[in-house]
Amino acid sequence: KGPDETENLIPKKVIIFDCRLENNTTTEKVLDVQAMDFNEFLVAIRKEFSISSDETFVLSTTDRREINVDRFEELNDGNTLHLLQSIDQALSVSTKERILFLPHYDTLIKSGMYEYYASEGQNSLPYAFAELIDNSLSATSNNDGIRIIDIRLMFDDSQGKPAVVILDNGCGMTSKQLNNWAVYRLSKFTRESSEFKSDHTGYVRPAPVPRSLNSDISYFGVGGKQAVFYIGQSTRMITKPAGSMDVHELLLSKEEFEKKEKNKEDIYKGFILNRKPGDSSHITNEDERFLHSLISEEMGKDQFTAVVVTGVLPEHILFLKTNFHLWTRELAHVYHYYVHGIHGNDMKSSKINTDGSKIDIQISSLEKLRIPRTVNLRDINNDMQTLYINTSVDAFEFKAHVEEEGIVEGIIRYHPFLYDKETYPQDPYAIPASPVEDDEDCAIINQEGRGKKPIFECFWNGRLIPYTTVAEFDWCAQPKKSGPVPAECFSRISGVLFSNDKFQVSTNKLTFMDLELQLKGKETIFTRVVNGQEQRVKIHKEFTQWLKDCHEKWDKQIKFSGFNGIMTRTDI
Amino acid sequence: KGPDETENLIPKKVIIFDCRLENNTTTEKVLDVQAMDFNEFLVAIRKEFSISSDETFVLSTTDRREINVDRFEELNDGNTLHLLQSIDQALSVSTKERILFLPHYDTLIKSGMYEYYASEGQNSLPYAFAELIDNSLSATSNNDGIRIIDIRLMFDDSQGKPAVVILDNGCGMTSKQLNNWAVYRLSKFTRESSEFKSDHTGYVRPAPVPRSLNSDISYFGVGGKQAVFYIGQSTRMITKPAGSMDVHELLLSKEEFEKKEKNKEDIYKGFILNRKPGDSSHITNEDERFLHSLISEEMGKDQFTAVVVTGVLPEHILFLKTNFHLWTRELAHVYHYYVHGIHGNDMKSSKINTDGSKIDIQISSLEKLRIPRTVNLRDINNDMQTLYINTSVDAFEFKAHVEEEGIVEGIIRYHPFLYDKETYPQDPYAIPASPVEDDEDCAIINQEGRGKKPIFECFWNGRLIPYTTVAEFDWCAQPKKSGPVPAECFSRISGVLFSNDKFQVSTNKLTFMDLELQLKGKETIFTRVVNGQEQRVKIHKEFTQWLKDCHEKWDKQIKFSGFNGIMTRTDI
Ligand SMILES: Nc1ncnc2c1ncn2[C@@H]1O[C@H](COP(=O)(O)OP(=O)(O)OP(=O)(O)O)[C@@H](O)[C@H]1O
Ligand SMILES: Nc1ncnc2c1ncn2[C@@H]1O[C@H](COP(=O)(O)OP(=O)(O)OP(=O)(O)O)[C@@H](O)[C@H]1O
Ligand SMILES: [Mg+2]
Ligand SMILES: [Mg+2]
Repeated sequence: KGPDETENLIPKKVIIFDCRLENNTTTEKVLDVQAMDFNEFLVAIRKEFSISSDETFVLSTTDRREINVDRFEELNDGNTLHLLQSIDQALSVSTKERILFLPHYDTLIKSGMYEYYASEGQNSLPYAFAELIDNSLSATSNNDGIRIIDIRLMFDDSQGKPAVVILDNGCGMTSKQLNNWAVYRLSKFTRESSEFKSDHTGYVRPAPVPRSLNSDISYFGVGGKQAVFYIGQSTRMITKPAGSMDVHELLLSKEEFEKKEKNKEDIYKGFILNRKPGDSSHITNEDERFLHSLISEEMGKDQFTAVVVTGVLPEHILFLKTNFHLWTRELAHVYHYYVHGIHGNDMKSSKINTDGSKIDIQISSLEKLRIPRTVNLRDINNDMQTLYINTSVDAFEFKAHVEEEGIVEGIIRYHPFLYDKETYPQDPYAIPASPVEDDEDCAIINQEGRGKKPIFECFWNGRLIPYTTVAEFDWCAQPKKSGPVPAECFSRISGVLFSNDKFQVSTNKLTFMDLELQLKGKETIFTRVVNGQEQRVKIHKEFTQWLKDCHEKWDKQIKFSGFNGIMTRTDI
Repeated sequence: KGPDETENLIPKKVIIFDCRLENNTTTEKVLDVQAMDFNEFLVAIRKEFSISSDETFVLSTTDRREINVDRFEELNDGNTLHLLQSIDQALSVSTKERILFLPHYDTLIKSGMYEYYASEGQNSLPYAFAELIDNSLSATSNNDGIRIIDIRLMFDDSQGKPAVVILDNGCGMTSKQLNNWAVYRLSKFTRESSEFKSDHTGYVRPAPVPRSLNSDISYFGVGGKQAVFYIGQSTRMITKPAGSMDVHELLLSKEEFEKKEKNKEDIYKGFILNRKPGDSSHITNEDERFLHSLISEEMGKDQFTAVVVTGVLPEHILFLKTNFHLWTRELAHVYHYYVHGIHGNDMKSSKINTDGSKIDIQISSLEKLRIPRTVNLRDINNDMQTLYINTSVDAFEFKAHVEEEGIVEGIIRYHPFLYDKETYPQDPYAIPASPVEDDEDCAIINQEGRGKKPIFECFWNGRLIPYTTVAEFDWCAQPKKSGPVPAECFSRISGVLFSNDKFQVSTNKLTFMDLELQLKGKETIFTRVVNGQEQRVKIHKEFTQWLKDCHEKWDKQIKFSGFNGIMTRTDI
């Protein structure tokens, strides 16, 4: 019980229903049995229910276990008992037993466990980090200046136990908002942000922006919790909202939950520490000594949030250390358009990101006796979107309108055949979709290029939803009969879809619910977009013409200008 | 507040921390402000903290909002306030603010929402029903006689609003167990089944049985809740444990949750109704009038559980009505081996299911002005496992041992080529894995038969995990170089894997976490099983020999016995 229970005796109230035959309406009495022994209890019962000394009765739980001396001692506050004539008497009337069915704390600490599971070989740890980056993107969306998201792997054991810190210079949280952060499934749609009705600000959906890069990447009220408890066992949220004098801090940990359960304390009660910036006097555990320097960084910052995950699982530490390039590259892929702007990382172009403020997502790994590694996602030049953009020579833009407000922007890019090879980029880390043996039965000319890969990667509110792809649409699929465009050209296209939040994603943001199904609905209207203008044209015809033009203009096949005799090439 | 709060005034205690500069240890006081107005409050503060009349102070929330008359009225029980010298004074010491972070009730009512989402075209509603069948299988596992699971679609609106009822004759639940049912994420591993320590029975893992048909298909403590709130908006659990006199009933509904939220009542408090069997006097809502006859069926039943889902979503009703054969067939697939026994539905064999008691899973649909449709899953003869079993001529059995206790039993079946066609069965409802156009580029001889489909379907504790398949193992994959067995024979095999609970599945039981990854680990030992005996042999060699034998013995290719001239066949 909390420290405000100053009474010496915690009440132990039991509710007793009189279910003896003679009654035809139930009588219900509440007795505080804390100070009673079993005999006193029986006397009290006789008195409360006016049972004369020659009448017999039994008391039982609602499971018909008779209350005896031992069981009486084990009764808990709130228990319901039946007063019966005999233990096997039918219930003359029904009784209403009060119950409590608080979700178990595994709701929080195991929430991510089976959500980000390794999908048969792909490690999804980067996508847990993505949930925290999502939150930081939302928090920094109204920043005036640069938006900084700083991920630090604290793997230097001279500084304490391993920890992962996600730090941003976003709007921070008031203590009420920090409290709300911890409430599982409390989404932005249902949240109250203040104690006071007068201060209430409901959720305002952001205005449409190109590529839906609206930084409004939260939906379910679970992401942060799932992510931190997937990464580790304990999380300290440290935050200071803009203009506030005070820092607010909240610790959630598996250990705490287990302790509260053991001591029969309220599972979902906790404390927020309110303190002045820079004050780390509460950090007394040696395992967390790196926090002193982190907290000292608070001085002079107007607003920030730091998510400090400790108890990081050893397998995650191993993965993060040994696959640093792999997972940072995957994050560069997920946030490609946030980091590089709507045109993406076009290395040939001198255009700079003109859409809004700069976003620095920076990851550093601090290990003992090792030079720290640091990478800014913007500097990663081998994520798949960078490869798609920089190997393509032309783009076909379109828009799909689904029902009321469902809008998907799309780009198809052409990767030409140059001299002796396809330029459609290969994902060096991809697991082959189908066993290689399949290809041996026949030689398919378009096996190079995209092959059987789906055309489209899919972004939701500007960030990649990694496990959903869309294979194609009718109008951009290779026709069954040969048409004006050679078949292999259809393998030279890649695509991107940008959906707004009218399309739903799963709670782990790994898949769309039904993007493809909705896009393929009869009601969907596709328009071509040229220079930012939508054009109501026959998209199939336009696309085919575009593809034909691309082929004629960009594909450089080797042509023989004169016959010089037969030459055997062993290199093919 | 609950009806046991008999006091006239509900306390409104606020906690006040003295944070004025002169203090260097925080003083914390609790004041009940229920009966106070703002001025009385200020007077009380001066008294409690010994503030002289010439000293000034401010009171603020932990978000630094100054408490004035209006905000004072809006304070809630448990709020924390800071006593400050001035509103922008730095916190001299830190304060500990009590918070509550109960999971939002969407945790329960939206739990299934994004879990059983339509995976791009496949309706996963049958898998929500499967969660309830899982529970009934567990509950009936110790039945002496026949195990009955009775699913009724109550779509006759002369009987009330549409409802789905899942009824079983299993062990039922005590009121404590029914209470536990409602606790999200309370799994069998962490549960207490009684109020009393002395009655505590921990979870006992069932002994290994063939094909892992152990009926122990629960794991996370979420399945039932996810399923019922995916199907509808409200659920009434009605149950009677064996030997009990009483029926226990619990209603959980979206509407109730919303009402409690609106009235600021405790979200996770509720009532269990304890009553005598057959007593439906509490059903007063016309929408549920079908319950009277359901409840009258209780008489004379020793044990049962009925899950009554109402507020069934219209799209689900439409799907259930119009695709009756489709989804019952899918359930026959999921529970094939429970319904038919370890050898499955072998229609050629006269063997009867000898392993344990009979399981009747029966589904009926009651619609107005329509003859009721009823099907027993055992009578469905076109589910995929039935097709695999009955088109196959021989089977290769094996076992895989993974680490300590991970055991997977496997069967590979041979579907011969007969005269002019492959007998590998086609799934009439399957969505083609890849667009049909791909096949036109070349004619692949093994395109018939299994084609590129994975070999293995995967069962967990005896029930199908529908979205996970395993393509192949090294030893049964088609070799890159041609070997002793013609390539096309590898397309004539189908397979089944039966894993025990040492392999993990996702919370929605739609996918395995890492079955394939684990099976392909270096440590995995494969043995061949012949007549139930494991044999440590070279599995690759054995399998190849078996496949070769199958080919030679069973494949009936057309042979030309004499040349009669060239014939043009237009039918190929
Ligand atoms: N870095 C942050 N800065 C400011 N507020 C944050 C930050 N991280 C989380 N929050 C707040 O906490 C809330 C809960 O975060 P969480 O990620 O658990 O759920 P969500 O973002 O609301 O929904 P989703 O399940 O889609 O992630 C957020 O809505 C936001 O208000
Ligand atoms: N038909 C039933 N008969 C008896 N007890 C049941 C029945 N259905 C559910 N229960 C009890 O309620 C508990 C909770 O069921 P629920 O399906 O929500 O979770 P679970 O089965 O424990 O785990 P999982 O998430 O794997 O389904 C079960 O463990 C079981 O004890
Ligand atoms: Mg989030
Ligand atoms: Mg279950």
